[in-house]
Amino acid sequence: MCELLAMSANVPTDICFSFTGLLQRGGATGPHKDGWGLVFYEANGVREFKDHLPSSESLIARFLQTYPIKSNTVVSHIRQANVGEVSLANTHPFQRELWGKPWTFAHNGQLKEFSQFELTRFRPVGSTDSEHLFCWLMGQLDEHFSCCPSWEEWVPFVHQCCLKIHEAGIANIILSNGDALFTFCSTKLSWITRRAPFGEAKLADTDVTIDFSNETSENDVVSVVATEPLTVDETWTKLEPGSCCVFVDGELVG
Amino acid sequence: MCELLAMSANVPTDICFSFTGLLQRGGATGPHKDGWGLVFYEANGVREFKDHLPSSESLIARFLQTYPIKSNTVVSHIRQANVGEVSLANTHPFQRELWGKPWTFAHNGQLKEFSQFELTRFRPVGSTDSEHLFCWLMGQLDEHFSCCPSWEEWVPFVHQCCLKIHEAGIANIILSNGDALFTFCSTKLSWITRRAPFGEAKLADTDVTIDFSNETSENDVVSVVATEPLTVDETWTKLEPGSCCVFVDGELVG
Repeated sequence: MCELLAMSANVPTDICFSFTGLLQRGGATGPHKDGWGLVFYEANGVREFKDHLPSSESLIARFLQTYPIKSNTVVSHIRQANVGEVSLANTHPFQRELWGKPWTFAHNGQLKEFSQFELTRFRPVGSTDSEHLFCWLMGQLDEHFSCCPSWEEWVPFVHQCCLKIHEAGIANIILSNGDALFTFCSTKLSWITRRAPFGEAKLADTDVTIDFSNETSENDVVSVVATEPLTVDETWTKLEPGSCCVFVDGELVG
Repeated sequence: MCELLAMSANVPTDICFSFTGLLQRGGATGPHKDGWGLVFYEANGVREFKDHLPSSESLIARFLQTYPIKSNTVVSHIRQANVGEVSLANTHPFQRELWGKPWTFAHNGQLKEFSQFELTRFRPVGSTDSEHLFCWLMGQLDEHFSCCPSWEEWVPFVHQCCLKIHEAGIANIILSNGDALFTFCSTKLSWITRRAPFGEAKLADTDVTIDFSNETSENDVVSVVATEPLTVDETWTKLEPGSCCVFVDGELVG
């Protein structure tokens, strides 16, 4: 199993603290040593950092812990390979452009049989079940909508698609096009929304504490979604299997 | 005008030396201060680094100068904005997947009128003429070939497409899908192939000299393409306007 991490915020916010927690699971406190990736949405652009080295050893990951890129939406993943060798092509998150938007996908789980998910115009570069599912999902979106649905339109459709995947195996999913952050729970996913009054939080995986009141203004709203709660002294909400959560500008909207 | 840099090699090779030269043009010795990007092909995967900050100031660019990522194909660009604001979405290189391959495109030049290049399934995320041309080119490839042409098949077709763009304005172009590095000269593009016996080279833009014999083995073949020659003591070949060059595994093949 892999570890997922995502963020949605109403102001550009850095994810250094949460990423530091996640990184520990990439070969230090966890077995997820087969690569990691991080995608930042900034204005209408995206930037992506990836490495097939364990995140706890990766120099790029170490650099990113110290370089606070501020972003409204982040999608991140550390990998424990099951389907597909350890390589850059098999490292999540995956990206495709559709309707002039950059879509980003990360997956935790495994599907034994995924050939039933027939591909159309999007094709995987690597050999993971995850990228296959993403390509199928993007193809479904492309066929279902003629162009440019709002998130209110595509979210229910994507939820139905995720339920089909969920029937075929384990698929905790994070998907975003920058407008909304969609998260689907197949087995394991938790989320938290932080807002004023901000307090302290301590990472579960390493001895790091942060006082969010030093990092934020009183109007900031920041939601974080992760496979397992990243902090020990805050209340995270666990998603039910089969359910989805959607965040826009840091707020839970569906 | 922007600055292009690309590399093709028969063994994974780092581009730190050439990138160091290029970076100087990103706000130090040159006016190309509106962002930069670098795409590395490693096995069948790619990784991309981008910043809309001037390359001579970018912390990510500085990190990459010290972190020798070894790659068989590199596509790089530093930008002086003319069409489209300074933003991550407008920062080259651009990428799209087609037939399960990651295609990368960078452009130096300007087209006053580009609406004649009608888009099909690929759409720009940003607002540059460059990304529009790339989306058009990918759409042309998609319509012309049913699937998966070899580079020997797609190169002549892409050359014809580039000549159409060349008629409409200035377009020095770099395109790769990892199999071949295609470069098209509209006004300005030079290349060099380095092989044994390797010697010393001095950068044109900053006081850095390298002895390639310390960095290479005797079977290495590495070609570099750039808007302007990057070194002062080597012989670069200038491309003629309207011509293209193709490199595979470091060798000029067409």
